[in-house]
Amino acid sequence: MSILSPTQRTTVTRETKRAVAGRSRMLALLGDALVAHLGVVVVRDGVTHPVVLPIAFAVDPDGPDADGTLYLHGSTGSGWLRSALDTDVCVTVTELDGLVAARSGFSHSMNYRSAVVIGRARVVDDPAERAHALDLIVDHMIPGRAATLRPPTRKELAATAVLALPLREASMKERAGGPEDEPEDVASGVWAGHIPLQRVALPPVSAPDSHDEAPVDVVARAEALG
Amino acid sequence: MSILSPTQRTTVTRETKRAVAGRSRMLALLGDALVAHLGVVVVRDGVTHPVVLPIAFAVDPDGPDADGTLYLHGSTGSGWLRSALDTDVCVTVTELDGLVAARSGFSHSMNYRSAVVIGRARVVDDPAERAHALDLIVDHMIPGRAATLRPPTRKELAATAVLALPLREASMKERAGGPEDEPEDVASGVWAGHIPLQRVALPPVSAPDSHDEAPVDVVARAEALG
Repeated sequence: MSILSPTQRTTVTRETKRAVAGRSRMLALLGDALVAHLGVVVVRDGVTHPVVLPIAFAVDPDGPDADGTLYLHGSTGSGWLRSALDTDVCVTVTELDGLVAARSGFSHSMNYRSAVVIGRARVVDDPAERAHALDLIVDHMIPGRAATLRPPTRKELAATAVLALPLREASMKERAGGPEDEPEDVASGVWAGHIPLQRVALPPVSAPDSHDEAPVDVVARAEALG
Repeated sequence: MSILSPTQRTTVTRETKRAVAGRSRMLALLGDALVAHLGVVVVRDGVTHPVVLPIAFAVDPDGPDADGTLYLHGSTGSGWLRSALDTDVCVTVTELDGLVAARSGFSHSMNYRSAVVIGRARVVDDPAERAHALDLIVDHMIPGRAATLRPPTRKELAATAVLALPLREASMKERAGGPEDEPEDVASGVWAGHIPLQRVALPPVSAPDSHDEAPVDVVARAEALG
């Protein structure tokens, strides 16, 4: 298991006490989180600007790329796709764990876990790897679901782009616990603490045209989520 | 109240049925959400790449910028700050509302609300606007909290950069409800539906060196969150 932050651009330089060096912690976060934010650089009419979009993802720690593979998918007609090819992208995954109320505005903070992965995305062309990646993305939402579904049609596959981002250039930061106030602020007697936040799931809602009860894998997923 | 998506780069081009044209819906999302993802374009050693970082924020719908102002703050020593100045940034705010289990992998989806704001950030120098923005960011976490705290020190203010992003170039997408399957997939009899997701708060946790019970504004915030 290699250590994170192997290059300068993924080395945490601010609040380094919050940097997490262990790859297993990052993989745990990427397993928990359901949405990533994909950043691409867009050049339009000579003006360069970033675009950040929420996107589904999945990770294969034993994927073909060094240190594992993060898979993304999207429509081949997506505007962001063009900007994601032949250049570097950034995928950031954040879970918010709490609000930290300190004695000063300056020390107010949030508890979170966040991973940042930067690199060149590879278009996945190999049919077996594409099928594997698409199954992983479905199973990341609901473990075991992909095996219960029909295989994708040729038309669906033709409309879907799959990208693979190596988990090599990555960093993670994490904050947990209560506020960190200056001694004179603690002495002021103002209350301080934190509000823990969690993501929870409600029971599955069957589609109106679905005639069965939710299957065990879906019920189990909702229960596991909270 | 102006309509969203006033420029080409913030016009939704994919799945336009999910585009939300009303500014009030976007303001409601920006009021609900606690974390934004800031995208900047970094140029290092001649290589351009995006960086996306989670960040606290607050919105003033009546701020000094046309269509309202989104405020960000950070350490003046932040690496991202340099990349956010004199160029365009992107701030994306997403709330995940559910997992959508369709009859095909292709139709699996998520329920979400997401706003994308692109533009040139303005460094806030005016002391009154800086103080207002910093209070808004604290109050966005816990409404009413800023008024209970001492004012920031000169040293704290000197260490803090405040940026203002106009809410002018913005778009919003939203998905809600159950799966949308092809008729032949519905006929297959496979179960389909969705798992609603929510963010909830646990009761406030007092810091070990805090001698009081959590004040009413903090308790009310935790209860309002869930």
